Amino acid sequence: MNYRFDIQYDGTRYGGWQRQKTTDNTIQGKIEEVLFRMTGSPVLIQGAGRTDAGVHALGQVANGHFDSRMSCEEICDYMNHYLPEDIEILRVSQVSERFHSRLNAREKLYRYRIGIGSHKNVFERKYLCPLHETYDVEAMEEAAGYLTGTHDFRSFCANKKMKKSTVRTIYEIRITELPKELQIDYRGDGFLYNMVRILTGTLIEIGRGSRKPEEIQAILEGRDRGLAGFTAPARGLTLVEVGY
Amino acid sequence: MNYRFDIQYDGTRYGGWQRQKTTDNTIQGKIEEVLFRMTGSPVLIQGAGRTDAGVHALGQVANGHFDSRMSCEEICDYMNHYLPEDIEILRVSQVSERFHSRLNAREKLYRYRIGIGSHKNVFERKYLCPLHETYDVEAMEEAAGYLTGTHDFRSFCANKKMKKSTVRTIYEIRITELPKELQIDYRGDGFLYNMVRILTGTLIEIGRGSRKPEEIQAILEGRDRGLAGFTAPARGLTLVEVGY
Repeated sequence: MNYRFDIQYDGTRYGGWQRQKTTDNTIQGKIEEVLFRMTGSPVLIQGAGRTDAGVHALGQVANGHFDSRMSCEEICDYMNHYLPEDIEILRVSQVSERFHSRLNAREKLYRYRIGIGSHKNVFERKYLCPLHETYDVEAMEEAAGYLTGTHDFRSFCANKKMKKSTVRTIYEIRITELPKELQIDYRGDGFLYNMVRILTGTLIEIGRGSRKPEEIQAILEGRDRGLAGFTAPARGLTLVEVGY
Repeated sequence: MNYRFDIQYDGTRYGGWQRQKTTDNTIQGKIEEVLFRMTGSPVLIQGAGRTDAGVHALGQVANGHFDSRMSCEEICDYMNHYLPEDIEILRVSQVSERFHSRLNAREKLYRYRIGIGSHKNVFERKYLCPLHETYDVEAMEEAAGYLTGTHDFRSFCANKKMKKSTVRTIYEIRITELPKELQIDYRGDGFLYNMVRILTGTLIEIGRGSRKPEEIQAILEGRDRGLAGFTAPARGLTLVEVGY
């Protein structure tokens, strides 16, 4: 049977989503451990988004094949009982054998949260990246306009040896001003390694005035990571939703 | 000069507000360290509420006497620069020489947050205490009615050797039902050691149906800590405001 998991986590303590050989301090590793305990045999799961160390999720999706006589609700309760308190299975559902959480994903929504102003936010500090300067939202929105659409995003990819296509489509970049917070939502068909964080770093540099919005076109055309802005810290980033 | 500090903190990592001889891992200790660095001499500060280990504050107030040629804003910026990211000075103001943050406090507002339902809250887990059962808010409100007013709260005080008066006045206990959360606000002229957490534990037991609201009267009259409910965990408690 093929099960789908909808998952929420605070990524602060973890080395990212993807299980590694050297450490099991990953979200995938923690979930697979619990599934092994439950089924008695190793279970591999696939996550829709391979979030980096420190990145959070409100709606990560994963799937895995195994057999169980428990109901979906019982599996969900079992998993939450044994998972650490910063990982939560929101829902378990049985899906078609062919469902693959990453390959079937049609779109993803990532949110980057920037804390504005001179005051820290002591309660949400692990989910916000602070920005102390004033910023120009109009310039950021203009730059976001250049980034939206189908482009080769090689300049925004941290993997320099990427052999596969670096063409992606961003459907929307929405910038929302909240009290003491700026949120940037990225909706697209897929994102390259560190792409959302590099897009955010570049938008922040434009917002600060150290770059101009029009530079985006040259950055995209140059197909060179060195042309884009800094990689914004992981803590501000959350995988909000995966669409199928 | 006498300075007043309005302070916010996430108490998770600390051994409470009050400086101890054996450890400086306290909020008071951290702030005094920074003031020593700033002024070059030891500065003692007084906090309005001596919050326990793990208890948070949205609006703690403290005061301390020292001389400085910096403006209040400069002092605030300096302190926030050197304080850890889970302690934030919201405001520094110069007050009359006779102002004492604890002795002059007229009332305090504490909030206890209870997470409801089978799901954990991965992002706010350090600020909520979970309750998985169903509960009876009407019974809790009835009990809150018996607790409101001026009473001897010795049964709700964890310090068995308390020699001073244990009479306090609770102006209001307000219970608010939010989605997946129950908030209990306690407004009173002062609270004894662990009093808010014991009041909350008792209200939770009444909400669960394992005690009846009418028992409150006998608990108050008995003047014995053993009669009241359990001490609710520190993580759910926040000092919201101090009134002068």
